[in-house]
Amino acid sequence: MRRPRGALLPPIDADRVRGRDLYRVLRGAVLDGTLPGGEQLPSTRAVGRDYRVSRGMAEQVYAQLVDEGFLERAIGRGTFVSARVPVARRNGVSARSLPISRRGRAAASSAACREPGVLRPFNAGTADTREFPWKGWQRLQARAARELGRGALDFADPRGLPALRAAIARYLAQFRGVACEPGQVVVFNSSQQALFALFALLLDWADPVWLEDPCYLGARAALAFAGAEIVPVAVDEHGLRVADGLRRAPRARLAYVTPSHQYPTGAALSLERRVALIDWAAKRGAWIVEDDYDSEFRYAGQPLAPLWSLDPRARVIYLGTLSKVVFVSLRLAYVVVPKPLVEPLANLRTQLDGFTPPLVQATTSLFMDEGHLPTYVRRMRAVYGAKRAALIGELASLASRGWTWTDNAAGLHLLVRHASAAHVRAVARASGLSLALLSDYRSRRGSDDGLLLRYGGLDPEQVRAGARALVAAERRVQPP
Amino acid sequence: MRRPRGALLPPIDADRVRGRDLYRVLRGAVLDGTLPGGEQLPSTRAVGRDYRVSRGMAEQVYAQLVDEGFLERAIGRGTFVSARVPVARRNGVSARSLPISRRGRAAASSAACREPGVLRPFNAGTADTREFPWKGWQRLQARAARELGRGALDFADPRGLPALRAAIARYLAQFRGVACEPGQVVVFNSSQQALFALFALLLDWADPVWLEDPCYLGARAALAFAGAEIVPVAVDEHGLRVADGLRRAPRARLAYVTPSHQYPTGAALSLERRVALIDWAAKRGAWIVEDDYDSEFRYAGQPLAPLWSLDPRARVIYLGTLSKVVFVSLRLAYVVVPKPLVEPLANLRTQLDGFTPPLVQATTSLFMDEGHLPTYVRRMRAVYGAKRAALIGELASLASRGWTWTDNAAGLHLLVRHASAAHVRAVARASGLSLALLSDYRSRRGSDDGLLLRYGGLDPEQVRAGARALVAAERRVQPP
Repeated sequence: MRRPRGALLPPIDADRVRGRDLYRVLRGAVLDGTLPGGEQLPSTRAVGRDYRVSRGMAEQVYAQLVDEGFLERAIGRGTFVSARVPVARRNGVSARSLPISRRGRAAASSAACREPGVLRPFNAGTADTREFPWKGWQRLQARAARELGRGALDFADPRGLPALRAAIARYLAQFRGVACEPGQVVVFNSSQQALFALFALLLDWADPVWLEDPCYLGARAALAFAGAEIVPVAVDEHGLRVADGLRRAPRARLAYVTPSHQYPTGAALSLERRVALIDWAAKRGAWIVEDDYDSEFRYAGQPLAPLWSLDPRARVIYLGTLSKVVFVSLRLAYVVVPKPLVEPLANLRTQLDGFTPPLVQATTSLFMDEGHLPTYVRRMRAVYGAKRAALIGELASLASRGWTWTDNAAGLHLLVRHASAAHVRAVARASGLSLALLSDYRSRRGSDDGLLLRYGGLDPEQVRAGARALVAAERRVQPP
Repeated sequence: MRRPRGALLPPIDADRVRGRDLYRVLRGAVLDGTLPGGEQLPSTRAVGRDYRVSRGMAEQVYAQLVDEGFLERAIGRGTFVSARVPVARRNGVSARSLPISRRGRAAASSAACREPGVLRPFNAGTADTREFPWKGWQRLQARAARELGRGALDFADPRGLPALRAAIARYLAQFRGVACEPGQVVVFNSSQQALFALFALLLDWADPVWLEDPCYLGARAALAFAGAEIVPVAVDEHGLRVADGLRRAPRARLAYVTPSHQYPTGAALSLERRVALIDWAAKRGAWIVEDDYDSEFRYAGQPLAPLWSLDPRARVIYLGTLSKVVFVSLRLAYVVVPKPLVEPLANLRTQLDGFTPPLVQATTSLFMDEGHLPTYVRRMRAVYGAKRAALIGELASLASRGWTWTDNAAGLHLLVRHASAAHVRAVARASGLSLALLSDYRSRRGSDDGLLLRYGGLDPEQVRAGARALVAAERRVQPP
């Protein structure tokens, strides 16, 4: 380390001092008060000698600092530290001194949409990636990169890559009976982002909206952002109680529903209610957002026909995600909307975050077009179905102790119900179980009568061990 | 094509009919009215014979359709089409019948944040990717994929990958004098998304906010989403007129500024105003969002010191993007915030769209840590600097005709000013030029006295040809 002669300027810890180093050290010294306001600096000649740099470089650094107002020149007298520079004191910043808005506090205090860092029984309602053909995917990605060329680096259409929109339309027609055109498909990063954009587009501040009760918490968060007046509508074993909605808020602007496999109860919406819901929307000019979030994972029978295909008046917006069926970091979801909504949604998307990167879209369209997706979905249906069977097998003894569940043979989670749910959850926490209460998903904390077992991302042994731990906890709560 | 005997059911165009085909055709026939409500269906035995499928399969398909309510069974009488199924008529949906909200209409009608599909002179204020080391990037990506393993497929921290947050903190300390900790960095998909989250977190509905006038339109869109009361504050050759803001809205909650290189005028905020702005924020407990969107591209002198490093009270939030310095589809931006804001922002992020995929973050952190980013920035500084010099060279003759521009030697666009700007723009459109008016960026359409030449993404020949076409158009408007 070398000290400059004259000792006015701080040392620079480098064998060869560059202009950037000199600039940084001088600015830092001014900012932290080492060089206080009014202090005279050495001549550029002296600086050049001290730091073994050229006088020209010293001159350039001084000129920059003068330009920025850190230094001042008095002709004939020399260069001085500007008196107007505040001294930095960055410590002592407390959370209390940080004025977050009321809205911000309300939204940001909820970690409901945050996924767990570590998967444990039963916090894992997510995709299992152990069997995902990752090598094959990387090969497809390399091919997509070759095909896109430098197009992979540039802007992509905010509506989605044409190849992906077409692949999604074909997939939906084949596997969900949603006979839409590619031009009706708009790609998003996630269902959550799609909900956000849809609610911003379709709702004004304080518009009433039907929300299933209990509900998917992401939808609640997106509606809260949009400033909607949330009207909770109860769910029973046939799904949303449409008649309750009609009674409580007939003039709602929109209804958010998960008709194939209600989140979190698992109920399927009955045809009668489907028809009533669509009738209401047509009559009132309201929207229905149909979130078909895990329709791919039905282990028995055909998936139920979506609302979209029952709706003659185009009041239903269909929403699906690929991040649950491919892998979670894929970040691809889509909506099917009437064509006049496509351009407005694309404009909104550019105002939210721009567009989805083209490479992942191109890779996914190859994955779909070459038939890998149906193959993988079929494979995973077996994997999840086996986990579900193992779970239910281990839980069998609870059935005789008053616990109930709907065996709808679908999805990546199971809801088990009993009046002692909250007590069992508290006891099971000691065994490392991470259980959600049904009441966490309700509009009001009512009776705690259900536990959500999210098993999708766990391995089969974790599922079984977790179920055994749950049964043991239940026995401690209610000794036989 | 085979027709079933009995002719009740529609034909299926397949050599071997599967259950899925049968299900789809029957459901489709019910939905489109081919099979009207009340119609009796053939027995499953007849169906099996007609379609050459097993009777068991036909039975399964019927049961599914009964489950879903498309069909009904009358014991001893047979199976009937349900009378409650509506007939689809999807045509005739007009834009007028689609109730978009007022807010939605206001936001979605603006394509201001949408990038052009085809780059022309001068609509291209974006990164030039022609020299980007795409092959090298793909190698880094393959390495990142190996290092992440299946972690590449799963959830990532909504705050950003630790390796990328650390790389960004190092980069900012070295190149911008922003001496922050990795724990203060939060990663987003884009500056736009970061602004969206910041405004949602920090602002309540109708909070007054200073916005530069003219301004970056993305910031205006994000403030509009947040429901802020926008207070336009004029910009002159020294940047934001802080005194105007103090006079008009001393109690504003936040100020959005681009102090290094004001968008779109290019002015640098003077030190005196920087100090006044920071003083105001400290006194009032207001926030300053400092958008340092293209600070990397300064062609002469050192970049100006950011507001962040002048601020002793942590009122400044620093915002930067990597999509301008690496490539546009990278979709990575970041903010530097006081630590108590990190978790609230992460929660908000999960409610907006989840998280940024880990693979691109890991690749970018390798690109930064191995020194490729500074090398590439240096290279591109020369490339953009040469384009800028070519542009200004071609425009030289306009200077003698009353046109002015600030030669601040930075950025990816140039603002040229003259009272005839709107007229010249209209004439130049015939030559294929795509020019933005300065007034497009103003809070109110005033006098049209400037043209924005966005050249970043153009090749040098396009820049020169575009400039020559502009000069020719100007001559037609004002003959010598």
